[in-house]
Amino acid sequence: MLALRLIERKRDRGRITAAEWWELVSDYASGRVPDYQMAALLMAIYCRGMDRDETRSLTDAMLRSGGRLSLDHLPVGRVDKHSTGGVGDKVSLVLAPLVAELGVAVPMMSGRGLGHTGGTLDKLESIPGFRTDLSLERATRQVEELGCVLIGQTEEIAPADRKLYALRGATGTVESVPLIAASIMSKKLAEGLTGLVLDVKRGSGAFLPELERGLELARAMIRLGSDHGCPVVALMTAMDRPLGRACGNAIEMEEAILALRGEGPPDLMRVTYALGAEMLVLGGAFPSTDAAKRAMEGAISTGRAAERLQRVIEAQGGNPSVVEDPAVLPQAERCEIFLAPRRGFVARVEPREVGYGVIAMGGGRNRVEDTIDPSVGFVITARPGDWVEKGEPLATILARDAAGVEAGRASLDRAIVVAEEAEPPLPLISHRVSEGGVELLA
Amino acid sequence: MLALRLIERKRDRGRITAAEWWELVSDYASGRVPDYQMAALLMAIYCRGMDRDETRSLTDAMLRSGGRLSLDHLPVGRVDKHSTGGVGDKVSLVLAPLVAELGVAVPMMSGRGLGHTGGTLDKLESIPGFRTDLSLERATRQVEELGCVLIGQTEEIAPADRKLYALRGATGTVESVPLIAASIMSKKLAEGLTGLVLDVKRGSGAFLPELERGLELARAMIRLGSDHGCPVVALMTAMDRPLGRACGNAIEMEEAILALRGEGPPDLMRVTYALGAEMLVLGGAFPSTDAAKRAMEGAISTGRAAERLQRVIEAQGGNPSVVEDPAVLPQAERCEIFLAPRRGFVARVEPREVGYGVIAMGGGRNRVEDTIDPSVGFVITARPGDWVEKGEPLATILARDAAGVEAGRASLDRAIVVAEEAEPPLPLISHRVSEGGVELLA
Repeated sequence: MLALRLIERKRDRGRITAAEWWELVSDYASGRVPDYQMAALLMAIYCRGMDRDETRSLTDAMLRSGGRLSLDHLPVGRVDKHSTGGVGDKVSLVLAPLVAELGVAVPMMSGRGLGHTGGTLDKLESIPGFRTDLSLERATRQVEELGCVLIGQTEEIAPADRKLYALRGATGTVESVPLIAASIMSKKLAEGLTGLVLDVKRGSGAFLPELERGLELARAMIRLGSDHGCPVVALMTAMDRPLGRACGNAIEMEEAILALRGEGPPDLMRVTYALGAEMLVLGGAFPSTDAAKRAMEGAISTGRAAERLQRVIEAQGGNPSVVEDPAVLPQAERCEIFLAPRRGFVARVEPREVGYGVIAMGGGRNRVEDTIDPSVGFVITARPGDWVEKGEPLATILARDAAGVEAGRASLDRAIVVAEEAEPPLPLISHRVSEGGVELLA
Repeated sequence: MLALRLIERKRDRGRITAAEWWELVSDYASGRVPDYQMAALLMAIYCRGMDRDETRSLTDAMLRSGGRLSLDHLPVGRVDKHSTGGVGDKVSLVLAPLVAELGVAVPMMSGRGLGHTGGTLDKLESIPGFRTDLSLERATRQVEELGCVLIGQTEEIAPADRKLYALRGATGTVESVPLIAASIMSKKLAEGLTGLVLDVKRGSGAFLPELERGLELARAMIRLGSDHGCPVVALMTAMDRPLGRACGNAIEMEEAILALRGEGPPDLMRVTYALGAEMLVLGGAFPSTDAAKRAMEGAISTGRAAERLQRVIEAQGGNPSVVEDPAVLPQAERCEIFLAPRRGFVARVEPREVGYGVIAMGGGRNRVEDTIDPSVGFVITARPGDWVEKGEPLATILARDAAGVEAGRASLDRAIVVAEEAEPPLPLISHRVSEGGVELLA
């Protein structure tokens, strides 16, 4: 009866209390509330919204449905970064060892590819032997020893959220700001964080393309963090084109390694430094983002950040020689150059088309049970605003076979628009949102 | 994928086409679309609404999911009455034989008790031996022979509606005007009607208490009927107090029989004649409602209507002597008088409290699988506006045992409010709604 009463109340624009959320989420996790009642409630929440207290109570209930990392005994801050998801976004792979090297612990829990976007776990698993399914106990030990662990959401972490997340995907209730915020935060709080940095993507390749929806999510996350004693800072970054050049699993892992060796593309480095500086200040390691940025540049130029990644890879069962020799990663069978179809400006590089192209070549999943080929993908050197001549190379297609090359080419035909006029791209990093409010950065 | 796409579209205030409804309803009826996706869609429809075309397409899809009565060969009109549900509403039991006796066929498909309201099927089954689960074939034959059949929604009739109806009850999506309209109409169209009269209840005991929601439902039903060549006329009637005096299964059957013998309470007779006159005019048997009313009075005073009921009861396996001797019906073990607690005006007789009282005494269901005791109930002689002295009899409690008497008394304590001032009750019949618009009657 509780579920029906709460559905009717939410439908009629009423509120759900903390005790009710706790009972409902427990009953749902244990199977006493059926999926169809939860589906009706999720849609009512999608249509009617939830206020700050309700969102906090749902977050708490999901958090308490499982275990968490115990890191309170560490003498350093624990800060994670979360991105709302994009194409070519390998920032986590660079950021985690870099920030850990500079004295802030990074217990990072990532996801798999979702929709058109890639997933950090899939990219990490392109390293031969690398394991992302550590127990909470082993993950805790690794954070103590190396300041960093790179894992997936285990069965122990917020199991109610796992179940709800899957149901949302099947019932058209994914893009609800309070539901997104509660889902992210329940997992992040289970990491035992003292701070969280959020990378909110905007533009055509983002899940919430409009700036206003992104800001709304940032503010909801900041309120949730504030309610739980975990300060949150958000940066709004561009996802109207892929980030960096590489799009695909092994090829993005390779680009991340190059970035840690000082050879990363400028846009990737700018976003990495901006997010990393916020993490290092939130974690109490540096007094200002400027000081933090200089320290990060140092950790990269001396090779210490790359070494930290090497030790993390070794600890998680991967082949550590990949850091010196990325050719250890799976290599694509076929490699073809994609040429400019005409002269003009590169008007757009559409992230969705690129992301769906990777999936079409076998580098992502259409269904949860699909296995992926880590070797396929694109290296896109053309940037919006570039002037190109007809026949000039714009990208490299990495594929499994001739059919894969064709699928990749068809995707790039749709993705890369060469036109007579350039279109102004979104500023790479446009806003900083914190408890203090919104700052315009660009 | 279709279900998810339609959920997202409805959520975003889009429309669902006839072909899509057909595919979705078929897939749902066959189990290919799971309950949780349909639940999310139902809530999206509840929140966003449906337009006339969508409601018609859903109705068609549900109608086409099953069989129907074939009555096109009959030389007379086929008209049914549907009530949105109330307490003490035994109009169908009087109306069906009365209208059939006057030359319009009544293939009547009724329901069981729902929420606080009683159900025509439960009342009929208080007659020893009476069967409401006839096959479509046998029901058709009985309409041919007797002009009237009183059955439940068989497995053959709109099976998709049966499944959706149960899901709506569990997911807080009952009180949606387009969903109510489509559900009623899909079943009524399966009866092969040439017209339908709707009794839309208003007031505290109705499922849609506000006049405006009731009118909205009436208009939606009239549009649906018009789209299917089945004219609909609706009367808005009062459900701020029970209709008639008897509330309970056997006791309502008895009151209906008395009504057919010319001894019915005035409010029951007024509503019965008003609805019956509309049915007889829609069915083409009389040129005006006045002529139809006079004919109904005649059919009752001559005993022909009561005889028609007798033949219907006999044809459906019931003991026909019940019409001469209602004592054949199950009799309650305990019978107690409920007295006025103070002197004053009867300010209210709350239908919900009365209805829940019948259920508390064992005369209704808390769960679908509960069996009911047909003998229990109330005879409430006090009417809103009556002046009563302290200790004066207001009602009779018919119960199974002492605990039942106590439960009944507690319900009447809440239901019957005696106060210093009378509250004006709603007009018994207030509006007539047809394709021509809304007429104020009171």
